[in-house]
Amino acid sequence: MKPVEINDLPTSVWLDINTGVFEPCVEISRRKVSDLAMMFADQEAVQQLIAQGDPVVYDIRYHPFQTSTSDMALGVSTIYPGKVGDEYHMTKGHFHVRMDQPEIYFCVRGTGFLLMESKEGDFQVAEWRPGTITHIPPQYAHRVVNTGPEPLIWVASYHLAAGHDYEPIIARGFAKIVVEKDGQPVFLPNPRRPNSS
Amino acid sequence: MKPVEINDLPTSVWLDINTGVFEPCVEISRRKVSDLAMMFADQEAVQQLIAQGDPVVYDIRYHPFQTSTSDMALGVSTIYPGKVGDEYHMTKGHFHVRMDQPEIYFCVRGTGFLLMESKEGDFQVAEWRPGTITHIPPQYAHRVVNTGPEPLIWVASYHLAAGHDYEPIIARGFAKIVVEKDGQPVFLPNPRRPNSS
Repeated sequence: MKPVEINDLPTSVWLDINTGVFEPCVEISRRKVSDLAMMFADQEAVQQLIAQGDPVVYDIRYHPFQTSTSDMALGVSTIYPGKVGDEYHMTKGHFHVRMDQPEIYFCVRGTGFLLMESKEGDFQVAEWRPGTITHIPPQYAHRVVNTGPEPLIWVASYHLAAGHDYEPIIARGFAKIVVEKDGQPVFLPNPRRPNSS
Repeated sequence: MKPVEINDLPTSVWLDINTGVFEPCVEISRRKVSDLAMMFADQEAVQQLIAQGDPVVYDIRYHPFQTSTSDMALGVSTIYPGKVGDEYHMTKGHFHVRMDQPEIYFCVRGTGFLLMESKEGDFQVAEWRPGTITHIPPQYAHRVVNTGPEPLIWVASYHLAAGHDYEPIIARGFAKIVVEKDGQPVFLPNPRRPNSS
């Protein structure tokens, strides 16, 4: 991430909800299959896709709004439609580092699911369509899965201080994975969890 | 406002961006011309409209997301098209009480302006259309004005702790008022400000 500049004046951006592109944008992060390699269940499919050009899974556009006294931030993410093996394109997912940091997500295009899981193992799913707004409480890891034919695009409002912790997800994933069976998304136990059945 | 219940679980609502209605909604506030009576320049028009049925200027729908450790909130506001005399329908406008509380506004339907003014008198305007997202820094009063033919609808993300201070706006208004001249919105000095010219 670039160093964040303090700006105490109002800032406006313009978002195209069909593309997830907004201007002015301070930073873009692009995640390809190789960036999520350990997160997909089908490792053969992962290696094959990487060899075939390593397609983009999702893009995140950020705008930090750091002022002298506050640190809200805007993120707009776009998961492109697709699968790795039978598993739908998804974000890495993360916990917030700070215990007091929630996040609001607002789905503006596409369809899919928001997976959430607390450190105590409470697993929750929100079904998303354009207009769904979800409040993710602090201490719930969150991952978005695009199960539709279109890009899945959402707007996030959070605080820079929240911090991102990817380690528990890299180590264990979420309780369920979302795969296509007979053209429909289904939830299966995560094969990387020892007690999955 | 109703007492806010603590909920540590994820919550989702569904927003219809054409109407500004979301469900489930915890509370609705409706503002009629009489609720903004002192804020419009043309007091004769105000009294006439109140006598004619006191039309609704705007609605605000709230959902607080109070958890054990956090207090984000969602607000969706709809300003109906219309004027009071030559002055366009607008919100009351407010400062946040706390010095460290910004707000993010995301326009999803309609056209108009977001007026912002700091306590030091720095006046800023953001022109709004669907897709405009504005970060309002702490200590900037904010008011939205609907200058178009459609409802102007936006989504707000803020913290319950921010607090609302309407008093300076009731006393002095904003630096400019927005009125229709020859079918176009124009900015005029606020006649209630002693040094306006």
